[in-house]
Amino acid sequence: MASFVYRRHMTIEWGHCDPAGIVFNPRFFEFFDVSAWLLFEAALGVKRAEFNSTFGIVGPALVDARAQFRKPAKFGDTIEIASRVTELRRSSFDLEHLIFLGGELAVEGGETRAWAVKDGADPLKIKALPIPTDVAARLKGG
Amino acid sequence: MASFVYRRHMTIEWGHCDPAGIVFNPRFFEFFDVSAWLLFEAALGVKRAEFNSTFGIVGPALVDARAQFRKPAKFGDTIEIASRVTELRRSSFDLEHLIFLGGELAVEGGETRAWAVKDGADPLKIKALPIPTDVAARLKGG
Amino acid sequence: MASFVYRRHMTIEWGHCDPAGIVFNPRFFEFFDVSAWLLFEAALGVKRAEFNSTFGIVGPALVDARAQFRKPAKFGDTIEIASRVTELRRSSFDLEHLIFLGGELAVEGGETRAWAVKDGADPLKIKALPIPTDVAARLKGG
Amino acid sequence: MASFVYRRHMTIEWGHCDPAGIVFNPRFFEFFDVSAWLLFEAALGVKRAEFNSTFGIVGPALVDARAQFRKPAKFGDTIEIASRVTELRRSSFDLEHLIFLGGELAVEGGETRAWAVKDGADPLKIKALPIPTDVAARLKGG
Repeated sequence: MASFVYRRHMTIEWGHCDPAGIVFNPRFFEFFDVSAWLLFEAALGVKRAEFNSTFGIVGPALVDARAQFRKPAKFGDTIEIASRVTELRRSSFDLEHLIFLGGELAVEGGETRAWAVKDGADPLKIKALPIPTDVAARLKGG
Repeated sequence: MASFVYRRHMTIEWGHCDPAGIVFNPRFFEFFDVSAWLLFEAALGVKRAEFNSTFGIVGPALVDARAQFRKPAKFGDTIEIASRVTELRRSSFDLEHLIFLGGELAVEGGETRAWAVKDGADPLKIKALPIPTDVAARLKGG
Repeated sequence: MASFVYRRHMTIEWGHCDPAGIVFNPRFFEFFDVSAWLLFEAALGVKRAEFNSTFGIVGPALVDARAQFRKPAKFGDTIEIASRVTELRRSSFDLEHLIFLGGELAVEGGETRAWAVKDGADPLKIKALPIPTDVAARLKGG
Repeated sequence: MASFVYRRHMTIEWGHCDPAGIVFNPRFFEFFDVSAWLLFEAALGVKRAEFNSTFGIVGPALVDARAQFRKPAKFGDTIEIASRVTELRRSSFDLEHLIFLGGELAVEGGETRAWAVKDGADPLKIKALPIPTDVAARLKGG
């Protein structure tokens, strides 16, 4: 599938790392979350803080997250994160987050997110809705 | 001032520590925040998730936080955190959080919090209200 | 496979949650990491801070992590985390971390970890070694 | 005191915020830590990951941290952090970290750090050394 790719560079900071001197794994999932919001912002042309109000949804709710750690990243390393939508379904989609370090693939991450609205009065109950056609088109980047 | 003291023990985990092998300082402020909620829960007899709805406030809003780091704590260390209200004013109060490691004072922390409600429609605007007499009495632990 | 199961209960704290009022997903991976260390400590009878020195390894290095989020957990919720080794291979093993909320499965997590030692002078280079027979037996809990 | 000022802009991300929709306070101390490293890097002309090896120290060890929270920052806000050394003593120094939001002072932070080397075999024991003259001159920005 052709798709919109969002790339950014960032530096590994002291506080991202554990006593082994490498990134503590939950930080990678935080990096993925930031990149997901940045991808939405860039692909849809809507500021990330206005995303929910613009589309009438509670958000691109996270259903699944995963990562394979191939090479460690340490304090001071500059990494590149390349994110894209790899699959669009009726009401959910898959994101891929590839982290490169010195040109080599260091982490291979993924997320599945749903296009979700509130389901009744309980603020924690959500239900998935079909992804709007224009949103799907922009995420594809065709 | 006589005051209610809340004590807890916890273990320093791998992910709390930085490449120097010691607790990364922002984690201590997270420990203080947890202890503040636990102190409120114990002193006021109200579950921390029901605290705001019970008292009609947005929360014991943080105004100031500070810490002096005397001895480092490392992975696997068991620390004791002793928290108490050291000063009560009309609409704000000071909390002390002392962290002990092997019987010695390792971190001397403090927070100032306000008794705050929403101020108009803007959810981020808050104003301080007088602390209710019974809440003040319970925080004092008299 | 029969296996040692490590269970613990914990409360969701204010700082674990995001603006939607539910646990921010990287925090779950942090919970998994703590449970993995606690499982090793309980199964192997070695304090987690002495684990690496006792076994002459850099640690049970994380190779892969994953989670499916079924139900959200919010501030004040008590969750149960049940962790066990689901598969043991020559030099790596799979961990399952199931998080229950009110008796229902809320998060289904997993990790793959390798039994790793340093590979030469570069502290970031590691290589996998065969898991010692007695360690494997204890993780199985047979 | 004249001093080197390090300024950077950053956006408040989803994961920085708590259920009240504003930055969870420990994150500010993490922002300060990053800015401290960036200030050292810019003032001293040494990459932050090479800072310790270059100067033969374990680091600019944190002795004290503090912050006053004047205005909340929320998801999507762009903040400016201006950091500078406000006082240099023989073996320690004070840093100020001012966070501006929309031109107004939102957080007034500070850190005290010591110029520290290892004190014997125990990796957790450190002692303060006099700050080298050229380092002091560069931090002053004279």
